[in-house]
Amino acid sequence: MKGYGMFSINNAGWIEKDRPVCGSLDAIVEPMVVAPCSSDTHVLHGGNGEKTNLILGHEAVGKIAEVGNLVKDFKPGDVVVVPCCTPNWLSLNTQGEYTAHDEGLMASFKFLGSKDGTFAEYFHVNQADANLVLLPEKVAPEAAVMTVDMMSTGFHGVENADIGFGDTVVVIGIGPVGLMAVAGAKLKGAGRIIAVGTRPNCVAVAKEYGATDIISYKEGDIVKQVLEMTKDGADSAIIAGGNAESFRQAVDMTKPGGCISNVNFFDLSETLAMPAFSWGLGMADKTIRGGFCPGGALRISKMLQMIENKRVDTTKLITHTFNGFDKIEDAFKLMDEKPRDLIKPVVFI
Amino acid sequence: MKGYGMFSINNAGWIEKDRPVCGSLDAIVEPMVVAPCSSDTHVLHGGNGEKTNLILGHEAVGKIAEVGNLVKDFKPGDVVVVPCCTPNWLSLNTQGEYTAHDEGLMASFKFLGSKDGTFAEYFHVNQADANLVLLPEKVAPEAAVMTVDMMSTGFHGVENADIGFGDTVVVIGIGPVGLMAVAGAKLKGAGRIIAVGTRPNCVAVAKEYGATDIISYKEGDIVKQVLEMTKDGADSAIIAGGNAESFRQAVDMTKPGGCISNVNFFDLSETLAMPAFSWGLGMADKTIRGGFCPGGALRISKMLQMIENKRVDTTKLITHTFNGFDKIEDAFKLMDEKPRDLIKPVVFI
Amino acid sequence: MKGYGMFSINNAGWIEKDRPVCGSLDAIVEPMVVAPCSSDTHVLHGGNGEKTNLILGHEAVGKIAEVGNLVKDFKPGDVVVVPCCTPNWLSLNTQGEYTAHDEGLMASFKFLGSKDGTFAEYFHVNQADANLVLLPEKVAPEAAVMTVDMMSTGFHGVENADIGFGDTVVVIGIGPVGLMAVAGAKLKGAGRIIAVGTRPNCVAVAKEYGATDIISYKEGDIVKQVLEMTKDGADSAIIAGGNAESFRQAVDMTKPGGCISNVNFFDLSETLAMPAFSWGLGMADKTIRGGFCPGGALRISKMLQMIENKRVDTTKLITHTFNGFDKIEDAFKLMDEKPRDLIKPVVFI
Amino acid sequence: MKGYGMFSINNAGWIEKDRPVCGSLDAIVEPMVVAPCSSDTHVLHGGNGEKTNLILGHEAVGKIAEVGNLVKDFKPGDVVVVPCCTPNWLSLNTQGEYTAHDEGLMASFKFLGSKDGTFAEYFHVNQADANLVLLPEKVAPEAAVMTVDMMSTGFHGVENADIGFGDTVVVIGIGPVGLMAVAGAKLKGAGRIIAVGTRPNCVAVAKEYGATDIISYKEGDIVKQVLEMTKDGADSAIIAGGNAESFRQAVDMTKPGGCISNVNFFDLSETLAMPAFSWGLGMADKTIRGGFCPGGALRISKMLQMIENKRVDTTKLITHTFNGFDKIEDAFKLMDEKPRDLIKPVVFI
Repeated sequence: MKGYGMFSINNAGWIEKDRPVCGSLDAIVEPMVVAPCSSDTHVLHGGNGEKTNLILGHEAVGKIAEVGNLVKDFKPGDVVVVPCCTPNWLSLNTQGEYTAHDEGLMASFKFLGSKDGTFAEYFHVNQADANLVLLPEKVAPEAAVMTVDMMSTGFHGVENADIGFGDTVVVIGIGPVGLMAVAGAKLKGAGRIIAVGTRPNCVAVAKEYGATDIISYKEGDIVKQVLEMTKDGADSAIIAGGNAESFRQAVDMTKPGGCISNVNFFDLSETLAMPAFSWGLGMADKTIRGGFCPGGALRISKMLQMIENKRVDTTKLITHTFNGFDKIEDAFKLMDEKPRDLIKPVVFI
Repeated sequence: MKGYGMFSINNAGWIEKDRPVCGSLDAIVEPMVVAPCSSDTHVLHGGNGEKTNLILGHEAVGKIAEVGNLVKDFKPGDVVVVPCCTPNWLSLNTQGEYTAHDEGLMASFKFLGSKDGTFAEYFHVNQADANLVLLPEKVAPEAAVMTVDMMSTGFHGVENADIGFGDTVVVIGIGPVGLMAVAGAKLKGAGRIIAVGTRPNCVAVAKEYGATDIISYKEGDIVKQVLEMTKDGADSAIIAGGNAESFRQAVDMTKPGGCISNVNFFDLSETLAMPAFSWGLGMADKTIRGGFCPGGALRISKMLQMIENKRVDTTKLITHTFNGFDKIEDAFKLMDEKPRDLIKPVVFI
Repeated sequence: MKGYGMFSINNAGWIEKDRPVCGSLDAIVEPMVVAPCSSDTHVLHGGNGEKTNLILGHEAVGKIAEVGNLVKDFKPGDVVVVPCCTPNWLSLNTQGEYTAHDEGLMASFKFLGSKDGTFAEYFHVNQADANLVLLPEKVAPEAAVMTVDMMSTGFHGVENADIGFGDTVVVIGIGPVGLMAVAGAKLKGAGRIIAVGTRPNCVAVAKEYGATDIISYKEGDIVKQVLEMTKDGADSAIIAGGNAESFRQAVDMTKPGGCISNVNFFDLSETLAMPAFSWGLGMADKTIRGGFCPGGALRISKMLQMIENKRVDTTKLITHTFNGFDKIEDAFKLMDEKPRDLIKPVVFI
Repeated sequence: MKGYGMFSINNAGWIEKDRPVCGSLDAIVEPMVVAPCSSDTHVLHGGNGEKTNLILGHEAVGKIAEVGNLVKDFKPGDVVVVPCCTPNWLSLNTQGEYTAHDEGLMASFKFLGSKDGTFAEYFHVNQADANLVLLPEKVAPEAAVMTVDMMSTGFHGVENADIGFGDTVVVIGIGPVGLMAVAGAKLKGAGRIIAVGTRPNCVAVAKEYGATDIISYKEGDIVKQVLEMTKDGADSAIIAGGNAESFRQAVDMTKPGGCISNVNFFDLSETLAMPAFSWGLGMADKTIRGGFCPGGALRISKMLQMIENKRVDTTKLITHTFNGFDKIEDAFKLMDEKPRDLIKPVVFI
């Protein structure tokens, strides 16, 4: 079968591979809608180290081609939404609070991490009964494909931010994940939402999703701006973009007793410096969390139920649409170039 | 001074009293907008036992007439929002999680409970610095007066209901508190919100606030209806009205691991029967909470910040408006009669 | 193979059955140490409805006889501790907070519930990798067998009781589960622990486990006793025995903002009446939880790690010891008769 | 009156000052037992910036000399335990979760921070009713004086560490606060407790308090040691000593989903570097908290209730005892020199 991926670092193209084999608990899925993500381009450029002949892609809605003999709830032909994280639910780590680290740090991110991705004629999903969700009738597939990483990750940032009714929340970075964090913060009861960003498309969607204030690096130190806008700092700050400096800024701009929640993927080369003073020399009672989106079917079914009930319109993220399996290449290249008007592309296959 | 209240059980009217005395930490406030509540009529009819010459009312926005010598943050002339619960913050009970029970069960509800209420030319507020909030410029006083009990109570029901993104939540009773619970459930991330009620005005506002489904006792057993609409019960049920039966129904209609949150004020004569079977004979891991709205200035300032940022429009609750201090009587009587088209009356003084 | 169980309600004896079949993910285990529990006798007497030819028993340490082809971490000959609850971890319900209700209310309790129990030459365990734990070298098997239900259940009662450092906690009922709740309450930081019970054996162990006060129904109303001992009620009450009345008492004896945690298995015929007044007519901010012990390997491995590190000595529960597979019958009958000096029997096979 | 303190940085001695004035809500207290702390010596050496003519000391049990006219629950002659943090409970910040930051970052630490300390003939306590606790009959004053900072701080470290039954917890630093964290971790249900330290006195007490393993910097990298002792890292790490490096080590040695809790007071000059890799590049779901001990009467009364019920013996910390007001100087100098056999000195006045 054919798949789009990387021969080696910085060397992308169409790869010929055998169709993946279906284990007893697993499913083989044909993609119907996929979306490239900056994590895919990050891996191409060596972000996860050397990888050879790896098919990329980890966001998909598809049709089941085959199921293992122990699968009970799905059958070939079912149209399913596929979480980007598909834990091994028989691992003991999933019996604790954070299930994303099933067999080690971030190990539930199996696409790209430990096997081929979704940009292929067929792809493999482990433990189908626990990891797949039927596409609900009232949810468009392109809305659904936005839940499997963008919405689930942005909303995890919100869940980790301890937001109470009426709180002031800063969202640093308003790419697709940050935009979902803005929407999620509104849906967790935030009062004021200060979004940090500059790109006009993103700023417009941030406002539609509930941002009450937009600030920008271009207008000066964002910490100073937040401290001037609030009396003694924000209640919470969600980091959904930026660079190592964003970490320090988030701690600096929250009040004592506040919360910093990270869903940005920092670079290994970066040094994250905790600001000793604003952290109260260790005693400011600021909580810092950095998390990976929970995987599995229950999670995504909850996201889909929000869309079904019109709590959030994820299609606002989609700025570019492609048609045809072959167009995965164009969509991927677009994501890699990140033109100023891009939020998120999708490919209908 | 003059105040509207009760001479004795079921005997209401205008009462002449001395103006209250201002302690060192306290304030005396002149009401500008007040709203009668069914708790006021409940007390008139003996719900809190015998009371004589008690001025009623516990929802108000007003102007400060006097402050005690130890008050730092307020001065005469300030326009303030007055929480219905004003804890004694020097009581040890407020150092725990639930501050409403400062000097005993529900003791922070001082209006009606241990002193005269707000339907007077002047009323008393203990610990002004900790219990009063300046009316924000962008918030209308009639929107603000809806926060001090209706919104704070309805939102407390939501906070106690453990709502996660995408959850299915039932709200039993859609009077003004239940409507606020619907709005709050949406703002805590609920997916589906099933509201139980029949009055057309309330049904219409429930839908505007985010209810996705309306069910009614008139169309059969509400437990059966909920179980048919959901696979194995709702994730949470909020009781914001109804009768003793509502308690059993709420436990019956939630799934194992679910949550029941009560903000209804049951009658002392009622027997609340826990349904042994649906409670798993004690083992269903259903959490049951019944709470009283937290008091104090921080709480109400957060509610006001939500209104300021257009997260919720509390004025949708207001169906009847009166003008003039003397009209408190008419507004109170209307609340007592509860015509079918009433949600909430306000009086501008 | 042979097993001890029930031919029908109130008709116990040795049953001949086929050895259970091992699924791909499962294991077949030979018991080495088992312990009868009052849940077993409860089922015999019809507590779960009609059951025919059912082998009883749900507490065991054993040796693996066979594993399915997909089992990775265990092999025949391994000595394992078997949780009484063994969820199907591929069920979506286990992806939420309470994993015990995997395929419905209490469905993770598969022994007795949906298949034969552990009082047999061989018994079946689903999803071995996720549900079995190797017996640690430093833990005696009889200490280990006390973890799988008694300790895990008693400690779940503690976990659900919101105990803070220095709190006053009442434990109602000091059979084996209640005694574990006493030990667990101490290990969650309780200050004062008031145990309710009368049997001398149990009272002695309660004191060793950390009870600071013992009260008894025989000396008058236990609610009155608790309210006299504390200023305004206990911070938490754990129900680990008693009858329907215990539920009301637990709510009555906790302070506003307190917590009631149930791990007692009430009878279907009982009416649990919520005391409206002490529940603040629904507004006392008392949290009520009733839970079923979480299942799976991680849970039990944590319990075993506590024993290994001498945090608790579960063998204090064992008052009667039997030797030989055939002695299961005697141990079971002893449990059914519940002589005054019995806490818990074990059978070494 | 006379008090021991600092004329200026690094210049300590006896200072003559006016007796403090008692506000309406306050009390003036004569110390009976005091204990110097490394925070006192830290301030002497300039840790809080320039301070002149400041009486030091913040740990005391004493006798009330005077109360303000609005104080209800205390009278001259009462023997009281004085929390090191005494919030202004009328400040809005205390209405949130973390009350220590009442009027800004760590502002509830009023001794040393914004007024004279306890090493004086008389000292001032704000809001007596909310901040003082009667010394219980069964608690020795020297045991009580250990609660006001050492135990409350060490236990706050434990409360912030999310410890579940059976967890593996590392405590970095076993001075008096770290030792209390060891005792507290046992009393929150930890299984294995790995203490990091070298001084023989401290090691001995750590074992008595529940440490199961002792490791030392002298035997190599402590991260490596912890990772070798556990499979994939500790569940929680509490930082109660050490230096900036300890922060990185704590993050490095916890598993994904784990928790790092700091109660160490870092130096302003130090750079705290978050280890990007072990923090999962921001996605390891490790929670980081750094907190200041909660103040007020309820907190300390809970600590005292633990001592009264023999949950912990705080006098194990006391290695040196002095008698007489004048001996405050010797005790302070001892604390400044920190001889190898010192854990904590007390002075009986």
